[in-house]
Amino acid sequence: MSTIQFQRVTIIGLGHIGSSIARAVKQLGLAGELVTTDASAAIRKRAAEIGLGDRVAETNADAVRDADLVIVCVPVGVCGKVAADIGAHLKAGAIVSDVGSVKSTVLREMSAHLPLNVHFIPAHPVAGTEDSGPDSGFAELFINRWCILTPPPDADPTAVEKLATLWRTIGANVEIMTAEHHDMVLAVTSHLPHLIAYTIVGTADELENVTQAEVLKFSAGGFRDFTRIAASDPTMWRDIFLANKDAVLEMLGAFQEDLSKLTRAIRRGDGEVLFDHFTRTRAIRRGIVNLGQDAAGADFGRPHAHLPPQKS
Amino acid sequence: MSTIQFQRVTIIGLGHIGSSIARAVKQLGLAGELVTTDASAAIRKRAAEIGLGDRVAETNADAVRDADLVIVCVPVGVCGKVAADIGAHLKAGAIVSDVGSVKSTVLREMSAHLPLNVHFIPAHPVAGTEDSGPDSGFAELFINRWCILTPPPDADPTAVEKLATLWRTIGANVEIMTAEHHDMVLAVTSHLPHLIAYTIVGTADELENVTQAEVLKFSAGGFRDFTRIAASDPTMWRDIFLANKDAVLEMLGAFQEDLSKLTRAIRRGDGEVLFDHFTRTRAIRRGIVNLGQDAAGADFGRPHAHLPPQKS
Repeated sequence: MSTIQFQRVTIIGLGHIGSSIARAVKQLGLAGELVTTDASAAIRKRAAEIGLGDRVAETNADAVRDADLVIVCVPVGVCGKVAADIGAHLKAGAIVSDVGSVKSTVLREMSAHLPLNVHFIPAHPVAGTEDSGPDSGFAELFINRWCILTPPPDADPTAVEKLATLWRTIGANVEIMTAEHHDMVLAVTSHLPHLIAYTIVGTADELENVTQAEVLKFSAGGFRDFTRIAASDPTMWRDIFLANKDAVLEMLGAFQEDLSKLTRAIRRGDGEVLFDHFTRTRAIRRGIVNLGQDAAGADFGRPHAHLPPQKS
Repeated sequence: MSTIQFQRVTIIGLGHIGSSIARAVKQLGLAGELVTTDASAAIRKRAAEIGLGDRVAETNADAVRDADLVIVCVPVGVCGKVAADIGAHLKAGAIVSDVGSVKSTVLREMSAHLPLNVHFIPAHPVAGTEDSGPDSGFAELFINRWCILTPPPDADPTAVEKLATLWRTIGANVEIMTAEHHDMVLAVTSHLPHLIAYTIVGTADELENVTQAEVLKFSAGGFRDFTRIAASDPTMWRDIFLANKDAVLEMLGAFQEDLSKLTRAIRRGDGEVLFDHFTRTRAIRRGIVNLGQDAAGADFGRPHAHLPPQKS
């Protein structure tokens, strides 16, 4: 018995996420044929060189012809445009999905261009590294990560289940929620952390009394942890903040209140407020490690060199 | 020829840093005798069980008798108290150092209790994980990390060099600067990042519209990176913020200005400001990795599971 789940799968956009899905689908043999494409000619060329898909199509319209599943893996700001490209070329009954980090705007902007005879089921795999581009993806990226589906209320349960099965097969856990709730949850677990990291890395870069060389050298005191997510793809993240503006601003408000509380405690020398806060946050780390959502080892499991053997 | 650098080394405080130094000194045979102690009877007992030092002393005063090098590895808030404990019991010509993350207050508070006939050379190894306690240390912790020495202007160059040699031998690079400059540099590379991480982890913990379970589950979108440093020792970090108040508040001011700039850009939908900022911060990550101050692999080198072999 074959493990083929869809006769033809099309992946549009071969960045970190799209190329990872392509690798996983291919490695597990989940598609009868895997067709890929990208807006960039250089990336299409690279995809053909490294074998990302059985066929690399030249246009979005061509790529989706006769596809049973289309996954749009582009920055959320261009999801609407891609939907406009493909809307008239989709097969009746096809499942169309995406991987965007914001769901309400994507749902609205893509729906406007998709015909009623396809199943549109937005998705967001909560996974990724700071790298981008077709060479950075890997088939194992989604293992034990969550993929959130945000089907519209009238979505066909069979189509939802088919998409969920694909995500589970490539290693993800699947959760279903509304687009609005997704955007609130991700604003705190992903968008606000990125905004804060982008901010502090920028702050450290333009100080008057500390040089950039010093910031880099002594970054192991904590700063380096922030630089990883502040190295994420600028286009992707610009689009996320613009698309999820309201939820991000709401979370920022809560963050600012809490930062004011701790700033006041430092200014007043109130050690008890600081100690209580720091004790509470320590427990949260344990919860994440226990859920398998981070490495159990200290320091994210970063590697260490060895000391030379003892001389005598 | 022996590699012994000091006839007797005393380490006071057997948390993450103190126990790591003890392990490295012992493993490399750098001390004729290694004496250790801790304010906690439970930790002294544990230190004896796991062999942290040739002898575990019961009191600070007893521990430093006849020591050629004393390294005080306690939270910065109690460095002055430890100096008061040991001042009258130090051997003439001994070198006294510490590992505190703040140097101006430690220099002031310890100096007041140390006799003029010892060499006091404050130090700060910029290394550590989120773990604490005597079992969490390891001999390799300082390899390729920086240890900053902040000797007073009248310090004996020979004593400074002896201490620097020990740090280099256990793997660190040594840099010398004033205590004031150290405190400004660490405010941005370590103290502000910790404060921000402590804040956002607290914020995520008490939202009304997103549950704590959801925050933990979907933390791989960025949030989990912050929880590591927000899991650091609460006592240590309370003391750091109280001791380095002025520099931390100055850096917070710069951070707030930059956060306001990005918040305004989001509110106004100004994608260009966001894109330019995010592009600039991406380069900083590369600088840190190139300097060997972080893992070169994506995602801090976090491990990934494997997909099941393809079925057929």
